[in-house]
Amino acid sequence: MPITGTTRVFLIAGDPVAQVRAPEIYNHLFERHGIDAVLVPVKVPPARLADFVRNAFGAENVGGMWVTIPHKAAMMALMDRCDPVAQLAGAVNAVRRADDGAIEGALFDGIGFVKGLDHFGIPLEGRRVLVIGAGGGGQAVAAALALRGVGELAIYNRSTDRAADLCARLAAASGGVTKVAASPDPAGYDLIVNCTSQGLKQDDPLPFDPKRVDAGAAVEDIIMTREPTPLLKACAELGISAHAGFEMLVQQIPEYLRFFGMPELARTLQDDTSEVRALLYPK
Amino acid sequence: MPITGTTRVFLIAGDPVAQVRAPEIYNHLFERHGIDAVLVPVKVPPARLADFVRNAFGAENVGGMWVTIPHKAAMMALMDRCDPVAQLAGAVNAVRRADDGAIEGALFDGIGFVKGLDHFGIPLEGRRVLVIGAGGGGQAVAAALALRGVGELAIYNRSTDRAADLCARLAAASGGVTKVAASPDPAGYDLIVNCTSQGLKQDDPLPFDPKRVDAGAAVEDIIMTREPTPLLKACAELGISAHAGFEMLVQQIPEYLRFFGMPELARTLQDDTSEVRALLYPK
Repeated sequence: MPITGTTRVFLIAGDPVAQVRAPEIYNHLFERHGIDAVLVPVKVPPARLADFVRNAFGAENVGGMWVTIPHKAAMMALMDRCDPVAQLAGAVNAVRRADDGAIEGALFDGIGFVKGLDHFGIPLEGRRVLVIGAGGGGQAVAAALALRGVGELAIYNRSTDRAADLCARLAAASGGVTKVAASPDPAGYDLIVNCTSQGLKQDDPLPFDPKRVDAGAAVEDIIMTREPTPLLKACAELGISAHAGFEMLVQQIPEYLRFFGMPELARTLQDDTSEVRALLYPK
Repeated sequence: MPITGTTRVFLIAGDPVAQVRAPEIYNHLFERHGIDAVLVPVKVPPARLADFVRNAFGAENVGGMWVTIPHKAAMMALMDRCDPVAQLAGAVNAVRRADDGAIEGALFDGIGFVKGLDHFGIPLEGRRVLVIGAGGGGQAVAAALALRGVGELAIYNRSTDRAADLCARLAAASGGVTKVAASPDPAGYDLIVNCTSQGLKQDDPLPFDPKRVDAGAAVEDIIMTREPTPLLKACAELGISAHAGFEMLVQQIPEYLRFFGMPELARTLQDDTSEVRALLYPK
């Protein structure tokens, strides 16, 4: 699938961008499925982001933008409109120009996360959930959970202000079930989600004490290291159902593709996720 | 050569862009020669050009821009500085960000043309040259010829004002040898260059009467149709040395690559042009 004059161009904006894997993954999918599109990285410093984003869409064949660190929150303010999860989380990881010319944003991190829970068969309706960490990941995850009818949405963060802010922002959408957790104690919850960076390194302390997890409760760790985090290892030893963050990525891919006007490819990759899994995690 | 987070991104800006062949050609060269770069098309309407160009370079890994119709002249005004040929011709077909952050332009059409003459062994110093047509192509060709020490540089254009403007602009650089030609009569010239669009279609009238070409004079036709133009056919019948515009393209490629910081690849493709020829004109 060579790039020609008719190719639609997509960008992934970050700073740095050297680490991004999206071009390899999506270009591979475009090629395999005969889609005349290409995804290229653009390293945009924060100070240039606003001008860059608004004007990049001056090119009519620029179909959209993937957004990565550190731009997800700043991008929010540049949008003409956003989907509900993005609004709640205060962040955007996908941007497109709508038919009416408006620049619109969406956030698929949290949706990928809850679709992952669906994939693992973890129920949400009416359940008591503890989200640990109210940074970018925690906000995305909590926003998506707030829209899924959980019974209780507790948020713990080392600095309590940040947890309180997020609870307040999500209160209405969640049906009034948010609360600030005073500690990361998992006792009394059906689902505990680690959204801190504790576990990126193998000698990090555990984000909470897994021995305190209720029988039958599930643990999710959104960290995406290839080696299981110390938390996942500890849960495995204790017989606790626990999953790594990979599934968030797998489940986001069809959302991105649908958003960018490729509904058939989105459906194909949703109906059979094995192709995406093989691409993301080659043996 | 998959696109990754470290890939340098180049753009070709035009409107339309569906017809551009540069992405296929350059991406092929990048891949074959192991250069971590990609060239993608951007369809930028004239009204968005200024904002697009200035802000596209806000992305630090955007290495440069190829420029095609209809932007070559308008792009000129957006540059912080330009090379001499671009300044003389009033047009730009390559744009990059210099180390000091300035946006700088260059024009390689005319340079490609005169390098083509060198390739064909057509001497220029002191020779009498007639350029027919003072549009974009004519301006680029005449500007490059003006800097090459020709003995006489006559320019014919149907609307005389345009020829007079170009002569005035090139007068100093040419050493005062420009003049407006009252007719496209080739008699009295050593080299006659067709820079009009007459010959794009096979039933177009000839841009001048080849029977009037002096013995030993050469004819160049910058039209790039695959089939020889009526002018080239008529010259062949009359035994006149005549060449098509292809060579301009072949000879421009190393110039672009050097400008965009790929001197080794530029040298390789200049030393042996067969790879470029095969890419541009597959049998």
